[in-house]
Amino acid sequence: MKKIVIAPDSFKGTMSSTEVCNIIESVIKRLIPKVETVKIPIADGGEGTVDALLSAVGGEKIHLTVKGPLFDDVEGFYGILADGRTAVIEMAAASGLPLVEDRKNPALTTTYGTGQLIQDALNRGCTKLIIGIGGSATNDGGIGMAAALGVKFLDKQGHEVSLNGKGLGDITSIDTSKKDKRIDEVCVLTACDVDNPLYGQNGAAFVYGPQKGADEDMVNILDNNLSVYAHVVEKDLGINLQNIPGAGAAGGLGAGLFVFCNASLRSGINIMLDTVNFEEIIKGADFIITGEGKIDGSSLRGKVPVGIAQKARKLGVPVIVVAGDVGDDLENIYDQGINAVFSINNLAIPFEKARHRSKKDLEKTVESIIRFALVIQHRNS
Amino acid sequence: MKKIVIAPDSFKGTMSSTEVCNIIESVIKRLIPKVETVKIPIADGGEGTVDALLSAVGGEKIHLTVKGPLFDDVEGFYGILADGRTAVIEMAAASGLPLVEDRKNPALTTTYGTGQLIQDALNRGCTKLIIGIGGSATNDGGIGMAAALGVKFLDKQGHEVSLNGKGLGDITSIDTSKKDKRIDEVCVLTACDVDNPLYGQNGAAFVYGPQKGADEDMVNILDNNLSVYAHVVEKDLGINLQNIPGAGAAGGLGAGLFVFCNASLRSGINIMLDTVNFEEIIKGADFIITGEGKIDGSSLRGKVPVGIAQKARKLGVPVIVVAGDVGDDLENIYDQGINAVFSINNLAIPFEKARHRSKKDLEKTVESIIRFALVIQHRNS
Repeated sequence: MKKIVIAPDSFKGTMSSTEVCNIIESVIKRLIPKVETVKIPIADGGEGTVDALLSAVGGEKIHLTVKGPLFDDVEGFYGILADGRTAVIEMAAASGLPLVEDRKNPALTTTYGTGQLIQDALNRGCTKLIIGIGGSATNDGGIGMAAALGVKFLDKQGHEVSLNGKGLGDITSIDTSKKDKRIDEVCVLTACDVDNPLYGQNGAAFVYGPQKGADEDMVNILDNNLSVYAHVVEKDLGINLQNIPGAGAAGGLGAGLFVFCNASLRSGINIMLDTVNFEEIIKGADFIITGEGKIDGSSLRGKVPVGIAQKARKLGVPVIVVAGDVGDDLENIYDQGINAVFSINNLAIPFEKARHRSKKDLEKTVESIIRFALVIQHRNS
Repeated sequence: MKKIVIAPDSFKGTMSSTEVCNIIESVIKRLIPKVETVKIPIADGGEGTVDALLSAVGGEKIHLTVKGPLFDDVEGFYGILADGRTAVIEMAAASGLPLVEDRKNPALTTTYGTGQLIQDALNRGCTKLIIGIGGSATNDGGIGMAAALGVKFLDKQGHEVSLNGKGLGDITSIDTSKKDKRIDEVCVLTACDVDNPLYGQNGAAFVYGPQKGADEDMVNILDNNLSVYAHVVEKDLGINLQNIPGAGAAGGLGAGLFVFCNASLRSGINIMLDTVNFEEIIKGADFIITGEGKIDGSSLRGKVPVGIAQKARKLGVPVIVVAGDVGDDLENIYDQGINAVFSINNLAIPFEKARHRSKKDLEKTVESIIRFALVIQHRNS
């Protein structure tokens, strides 16, 4: 055993991906002191993405004051990676649900602060922006973000509308003449693992509005406002947003980034793996240990272990998954290039109890995996 | 991968050892059609021991009517293995707790029927008797069993006492002159994984009496009666039973077999493995998969995986355990020669729910184990 790559997702509700990495590494180092381990804590665009990428490839964390979801000042942040030109931005750092606490209201919240983070990255000369859009408090179609970059959204009187989900419904025209032109010259990647359209029954308001604080009436209004916005975008800019899968992500920020920043919407795990140059990292590895809080064969989209397996199988590197819950249909998982899946549930107890022992359970499970690998390898050497 | 030996215990409350064997084998055969599999369902002296040994080495199941625990007729059974001279007897088949149903009463129950099974085996020419003593309904010190073989237990009037826990207290002398002498010429092995003394706070009555239906008063009487019995044994036969660990097993049947049948009390798993010639079976195996409903590092005594690992490590064959619950202190398990332990709990749910999906969970866990072994082997070939 010469090299093992450790690249887990977080285990939701129990361990961050960095914690998972450290536990797995410590077991491996104890059992095989001479092995090379490479830790790549994975985040797929949600909370922790900046820290995960900074820890994987190095760089600088930038802190700055921006407008929060309700236009109050908040301490935001983003990362500039070691290459000095790639910015990693979590929309939630400026416009996330935790920032509104008990004042959830997707009619009033804005992505303006996310636009400010983008602008700061442009000011510092970044030419590639990776934008994670998980955890939004907003339903503003990304107009707040676009306004921070100079786009004007006007009502029938020619006044600028409120930059939130309510204001969307008042838009009659869009003026991009003052837009910060630098945004068109950089590469913008949006980490997006949902394919919701902007509006309609599967759209941003209906699917994600309630968890952001919208009641039934508000959901209907927000959905209508998103469709008004879409029609103006089509009229003034010639873009039919309803055909873009993922336009409805993050309250329509997906749409805004697509229209005003020429962003490509891509799977978070793929952006992450490309950014850390994963294929280079895993060359010569005996195997990769990845992990996930919950995995089954029916919901593979955007799953960290699946994204990893797709890269790994090109190079013939085995992929072992440790997971909290392992659901059914594992055949689909094996078909994706995952070689084995082990649950860390060492006792038949409910999650509320199991979560308190998850670190120990992970440690024990990994220990048996490594010991098993050693003995099988030894038998065949 | 050429040969895999499958030798699990039952998973209490969910799967028999034969079921566990079949599930594991079917997964292996699906993934590696050409591999040789050897199935050894293990039972360690309790229910299923006869069937497990018959299935492992072949032989005949003998059915006969004997006295049950309350002296009524019951359909008992035992096995004669393919060698034609080894009998396998479960005491519970004649004197077990399930046979008394709601009439539990260890003052009245007897091991007489177990003695009848032994006698039938002698009649058929068996020269080696393996006696599993789990699941007894009795607390008679084995005097019922011994009486069936001709031993007389007499009170101070010279009358034969009742052959049960109550009668024990009346014994003043023991007459072995009419004992079936054949029992002294055969080899008797008692499968015994407890080391309780015959009487006292850790003795048969105090530790096991309550689960056989004794209340506090009855426990005290039974314990006293066992001590009376022990003193008469010492007086008439010169054997100090209180020094024999395991004399208190099965309501003192351990003592009775030791005194009257020259039985050696040995670990059930070791008897089982020797009987099937386990060391021969595992020669050339890539690894052994064993299993257990529950395993941890603190209660290793008599555990099937531990017994297997002790044999396997002499021959350098790896041992992989699949288990329902995996408790703590796995270091102790690894020290015993077990190489890896994987829980089959794929979901964080309580046992009452998990038990219904245990077959599927076992299947999935074994599939990942085999796939992992294949890929590691392939990397090193």
